[in-house]
Amino acid sequence: MHEPPYSGRFEAGAHLFALRVYFEDTDAGGVVYHANYLRFMERARSDMMRVAGIDQREAMESGVGTYVVVEVGMRYKMPARLDDDLLVVSRVGNMRGALCAVHQRVMRGQETVVEADISVALIGPSGRPTRQPRHWLETFERLKGTK
Amino acid sequence: MHEPPYSGRFEAGAHLFALRVYFEDTDAGGVVYHANYLRFMERARSDMMRVAGIDQREAMESGVGTYVVVEVGMRYKMPARLDDDLLVVSRVGNMRGALCAVHQRVMRGQETVVEADISVALIGPSGRPTRQPRHWLETFERLKGTK
Amino acid sequence: MHEPPYSGRFEAGAHLFALRVYFEDTDAGGVVYHANYLRFMERARSDMMRVAGIDQREAMESGVGTYVVVEVGMRYKMPARLDDDLLVVSRVGNMRGALCAVHQRVMRGQETVVEADISVALIGPSGRPTRQPRHWLETFERLKGTK
Amino acid sequence: MHEPPYSGRFEAGAHLFALRVYFEDTDAGGVVYHANYLRFMERARSDMMRVAGIDQREAMESGVGTYVVVEVGMRYKMPARLDDDLLVVSRVGNMRGALCAVHQRVMRGQETVVEADISVALIGPSGRPTRQPRHWLETFERLKGTK
Repeated sequence: MHEPPYSGRFEAGAHLFALRVYFEDTDAGGVVYHANYLRFMERARSDMMRVAGIDQREAMESGVGTYVVVEVGMRYKMPARLDDDLLVVSRVGNMRGALCAVHQRVMRGQETVVEADISVALIGPSGRPTRQPRHWLETFERLKGTK
Repeated sequence: MHEPPYSGRFEAGAHLFALRVYFEDTDAGGVVYHANYLRFMERARSDMMRVAGIDQREAMESGVGTYVVVEVGMRYKMPARLDDDLLVVSRVGNMRGALCAVHQRVMRGQETVVEADISVALIGPSGRPTRQPRHWLETFERLKGTK
Repeated sequence: MHEPPYSGRFEAGAHLFALRVYFEDTDAGGVVYHANYLRFMERARSDMMRVAGIDQREAMESGVGTYVVVEVGMRYKMPARLDDDLLVVSRVGNMRGALCAVHQRVMRGQETVVEADISVALIGPSGRPTRQPRHWLETFERLKGTK
Repeated sequence: MHEPPYSGRFEAGAHLFALRVYFEDTDAGGVVYHANYLRFMERARSDMMRVAGIDQREAMESGVGTYVVVEVGMRYKMPARLDDDLLVVSRVGNMRGALCAVHQRVMRGQETVVEADISVALIGPSGRPTRQPRHWLETFERLKGTK
């Protein structure tokens, strides 16, 4: 009776992550509550790492560190509604030192619902920024070239 | 670039819905925050209806009504953690008038994490309970017999 | 410019905790999303402990333990809506060993919105239930007698 | 047994809104989950309107419209943790047509935890941006001058 959870996939250098809008995501205005797009995008970033072969929980527990969000720039283009079928498209941009830039777009079909630039930093057990492991950089460099 | 969202499937009379635990689901105790299992179970119930061919949003907009939760009994057996691979197993029980009983179990492999009995009621546009459409009852009756 | 957060107060043996319904609490049905009452009730339990003089974070960090929810029984009586002015009334019931029963009622004026019986257990650093400190029991015993 | 919910207050042209960090707000990293600051800031904006005498729910129901977030710029300066005592300081900036700029800062004592520029737009029942009522503009202009 085992059923593995969905994690999305890479295509043309981007990670694609489909999701459905549930009641929990909406508000009394009948649309997705604005903060919840950050949840959707974090799910997609987590699964982008997973699909890339990076184990976030292992990295946290073994002392490599945890990514934390340091900056968010987000533009809301149109509302999404209950039962909408959305796609989070994530592209890793510049990676340098502890910092990694990710561009994320939430799409409904051909339309952009929300567009965001998210900067994350790898934070070590001491609570200070720490250099991202070289093989993570190489992995993302390679995935950007995915067909 | 289209990618349909995951909705689970029926097997042996139950709806199976796999999900991953993300940072948003956990709390500072390092485990899934207790209220979030209700979100997981509502996602599973929504997709159980979808897979059964019932369109919740259409039912809401066309005036048939919306299911609301009227009673919850929930036992927490063991904690789930970041990145855990969970399975929500949902079984429809008694359906009568406006009421529908659903038994839901959140599993991690062979272990039960949370077990719940959820009663939902179909509420019409007037805000009062309303009889569930006969073909919904027939649909769930038929799905209980799924191999 | 300091402004201390609100924590509620004891009256007639119960802890009273007022809150407002914000957009984040509601869903596309126009009402408070059912799982969010568990968040409201956990806020109230946390502040009940705080007002009683028990420091949850200190107890977690010093190795005394953390309360986790082990069982929930919840009846939804009527919906609450955006901007509603709610009151969570919490009463500590039986305390024995690691277990503590709390009865909680979410009110809007004289009406009961949700009624719940919540069982929590104190879990030590080992992840196993641990006996509640005697002075916590005495504290709650004393507060039940509050006028 | 009535207890009115807390709504903050104006001081020196800014709205001050104190809040406590609860378990629901944190994640397995031990800190406040990044998306939740948007919830804190939306609570503060809602109560800023309430204290200013503007009734959001009435405006939504009577057809004036609802504010939706159209752009977010957010910088995370330091983490907040369970039980932290935070203060959201909100200042209304430029208001023109349907648009209103709000600068918000989440403080812990003298330290800035998160700083954000939020643009909201008033959306009418048709789903299109609609001019903000003149008396709302006058109200905020007056409150900016508060001592």
